[in-house]
Amino acid sequence: MSEIQRAACIGAGVIGAGWAARLAWNGIDVKMYDPHPEAPRRLSEVMANADRAMSKLTIAPFPPKGSVTFCDTMEETVSDAEFIQESAPEREDVKIKILAEIEQYAPTDTLIGSSTSGLLPTKLQAEMAHPGRFMVVHPFQPVYLLPLVELVGGEQTDPAFIEKAKALFTSIGMKPLHVRKEIDAFLADRLMEAMWRESLWLVNDDVATAQELDDAVIYGCGLRWASMGSFMTFRIAGGELGMRHFMSQFGPALKWPWTKLMDTPELDDELLDKIVGQSDDQAGGVDVRELERIRDDCLIAVQQALKAQNYAAGKVLAEHEERLYKNVHAGNNEQADVDISQPLKLFNTVVQPQWVDYNGHMTESRYLQVFGDSSDALYRHLGIDRAYLDDVGSYYTVETHIMHIKEVAGLEPIHSTTQVLDQDEKRLHLLHSIYHSGTNELLATGEQMMLHVDAKSGKAAAAPDWMLAKIKPITDAHAGLEKPDVAGRSIGIKRNV
Amino acid sequence: MSEIQRAACIGAGVIGAGWAARLAWNGIDVKMYDPHPEAPRRLSEVMANADRAMSKLTIAPFPPKGSVTFCDTMEETVSDAEFIQESAPEREDVKIKILAEIEQYAPTDTLIGSSTSGLLPTKLQAEMAHPGRFMVVHPFQPVYLLPLVELVGGEQTDPAFIEKAKALFTSIGMKPLHVRKEIDAFLADRLMEAMWRESLWLVNDDVATAQELDDAVIYGCGLRWASMGSFMTFRIAGGELGMRHFMSQFGPALKWPWTKLMDTPELDDELLDKIVGQSDDQAGGVDVRELERIRDDCLIAVQQALKAQNYAAGKVLAEHEERLYKNVHAGNNEQADVDISQPLKLFNTVVQPQWVDYNGHMTESRYLQVFGDSSDALYRHLGIDRAYLDDVGSYYTVETHIMHIKEVAGLEPIHSTTQVLDQDEKRLHLLHSIYHSGTNELLATGEQMMLHVDAKSGKAAAAPDWMLAKIKPITDAHAGLEKPDVAGRSIGIKRNV
Repeated sequence: MSEIQRAACIGAGVIGAGWAARLAWNGIDVKMYDPHPEAPRRLSEVMANADRAMSKLTIAPFPPKGSVTFCDTMEETVSDAEFIQESAPEREDVKIKILAEIEQYAPTDTLIGSSTSGLLPTKLQAEMAHPGRFMVVHPFQPVYLLPLVELVGGEQTDPAFIEKAKALFTSIGMKPLHVRKEIDAFLADRLMEAMWRESLWLVNDDVATAQELDDAVIYGCGLRWASMGSFMTFRIAGGELGMRHFMSQFGPALKWPWTKLMDTPELDDELLDKIVGQSDDQAGGVDVRELERIRDDCLIAVQQALKAQNYAAGKVLAEHEERLYKNVHAGNNEQADVDISQPLKLFNTVVQPQWVDYNGHMTESRYLQVFGDSSDALYRHLGIDRAYLDDVGSYYTVETHIMHIKEVAGLEPIHSTTQVLDQDEKRLHLLHSIYHSGTNELLATGEQMMLHVDAKSGKAAAAPDWMLAKIKPITDAHAGLEKPDVAGRSIGIKRNV
Repeated sequence: MSEIQRAACIGAGVIGAGWAARLAWNGIDVKMYDPHPEAPRRLSEVMANADRAMSKLTIAPFPPKGSVTFCDTMEETVSDAEFIQESAPEREDVKIKILAEIEQYAPTDTLIGSSTSGLLPTKLQAEMAHPGRFMVVHPFQPVYLLPLVELVGGEQTDPAFIEKAKALFTSIGMKPLHVRKEIDAFLADRLMEAMWRESLWLVNDDVATAQELDDAVIYGCGLRWASMGSFMTFRIAGGELGMRHFMSQFGPALKWPWTKLMDTPELDDELLDKIVGQSDDQAGGVDVRELERIRDDCLIAVQQALKAQNYAAGKVLAEHEERLYKNVHAGNNEQADVDISQPLKLFNTVVQPQWVDYNGHMTESRYLQVFGDSSDALYRHLGIDRAYLDDVGSYYTVETHIMHIKEVAGLEPIHSTTQVLDQDEKRLHLLHSIYHSGTNELLATGEQMMLHVDAKSGKAAAAPDWMLAKIKPITDAHAGLEKPDVAGRSIGIKRNV
């Protein structure tokens, strides 16, 4: 359960509405205050996006959703709130006025946060009656999906409230980052703003367009930034010799016109020692080879995830895969040679890290995925390509029988063989077997019935004669092989009666 | 197939070796030249990482791997190369000398690239005999995994070679970005460098540590940057009113001390129009609601991908899921009430976008995943928790029989029911059925045999009496239900003889 039951959100713009969505999804009832006539419509739009996103983000059971209610007065909104978040326009005078109004009606010990992107908490809290419970609580768009929230106390903020806020935001799935020293724009926005100002210069000077500058991020450093920041990235770039080596190599570049920001700190021994020390702390004793593997695994996972969206770097990967498959088709690859006297060896891979369950073993559903990939490899071998799928039809799996025989751990090499047990004009009866490619042990079998479906009608239909003729020699060759006793099996507890 | 068969890499540091790995994996034979005694060892380390990464990145069939060979002389290295990449230390004089040596032996029309991070191609090519075929070809670490490569021509570069380079790098899975105007550090490194210099100030001034600054990226903006750069992000932040609205809101902040980079371009009407026009071009007519959905889907996919790595934002998500499951356990959720007189309704979800195949339907292996999730829901219902798994044991799936009945599209709501068909002390015989939650149509059935395995011995063992007693009333209640005819079925083509 989250730490609280009732929250108040002042301001229902995209940030305030995003807060309401995150709070409600985590079971907290939210009262909202925003006199703007469009506020309810805006809220419902953000909420629709949030509902869509949250139901996809995880299948873990959220608590019953909290209510979100617009109130007519500030009093009604905040008087019983256990947490109040102000998300008004980015003007110091406006925010100070709203905070005064909140304090008029809120319990004196209720945590109050401001969503400001850069105003200083000391200034915002200066006129408050109970400033100890106030801090900047700076989220990132979309608030319902991004975990980061910066907590910035002012001179009068009570450290106990910082701790209270950390617990609260953790309980609603966020990652609180306590910004220990008060500074304009805090941390994340300073980094973003530096990059943004540099970008504006490049557009201003006609060096690059908006699209080109975004491309420079999303196909390169942006993929790394999803899991590692600059310090960790550069530590790894320093290789075995670490951060000190990296800084000695690239330190001189700080004096070069590599950005418009030419006012750089003096990289003296004191600063260098500080950076190296903090980088060592961050790495926590994990060596660079292991950090490289973590970096690579995250980069792989992120690109695979984006591939499923067919977007950004994922689109580049998808297009390259298509190129690689076409290449096999064109006969430019050894895989084209297949011995049909034995079960066909068409598919091999390693157990990918994201296929592994908490015990370190390949998870159940990935066996079926490997059987599916093996069927796809057979289809490609038979000459079923994009044109066939579009114009003729495809084989659909209608039934599958899996036997799990032995477990296999992540990164182990595996391959499958495919025996054609039977065919008729519409059906194809297959037995896939997955083996460990090192020990050759049998790990699992997957017996499947495939049905040929017409591309136009979407109904079961005979495969064309040329396709049947292509399958026939394999079926005939495999008819002479022993029929494994897993084939034709049914499930049940057999009792000795 | 890639555009070429033979490449040469001059310099075998982490960048040169990364190039060799990417080229070889795409079927190109690589000759390397690096007189440093440690070069072969370094190469083999990078190559080992690359082999590990590439075999995980995709199961698409790479062509037979190209060879990577160290040569003793520059002549041997480059004389028959179709592409030559220089990755020497970042010193203009060193690079100019190497380029001269390359030209002494290379065919005059061979594309030559330099991996420099920021030196100007016009200067590097100034003394070349055939400068038209030279350009900066700037990759990002790790070269084998990141798609971005910046192509920067100098004054003497022949535009035809830029086109040739685009085709070559696309053919090896990269995303070439032509930097049209020559500038120090090109595009990506200018953006990174601006952020990096800002970071160094924050460390220098004791505002934040390396770890805190990296956290400010990886839990927030870094997740966005994996799929959208600043311009697209800010366009979306502008909402329905678009980029002009965003700029009018945040334009004034350019004068505020939100970074050390206080020298900003004048945001006059001309620059504003340019930014808005380029942003419109980039969006290509896609409206902001759709852009929001793309953003959210990418953020979800990236966080789910990182969850499988249990790293960065993925770790935050995993911890929140654990919290949510604990909450259900503690009985704080309606799901705790289950009617055992009917097949148990324990699991519901929506068909997640990454579960969908190219036809828009839920892909085969995800059915088994839903059956697995349904079994997990049953286990949680029976009280199997982390302590049980650690100390007592768990049920393993040994056999599964799936019937595919009807297809279902992405984002459709589905649920499962679970009928306990039989039990003995070691075994549990289940029938899961997946239904569309809107129409209540049956989509698939999954009959499964589960075997109880002891946590210590890893062998089949009776479940404890209290667990058997917990299952018994369900088995008894379900014994009275009709046994669906899919149960006990075996696969085969039945012919009318």
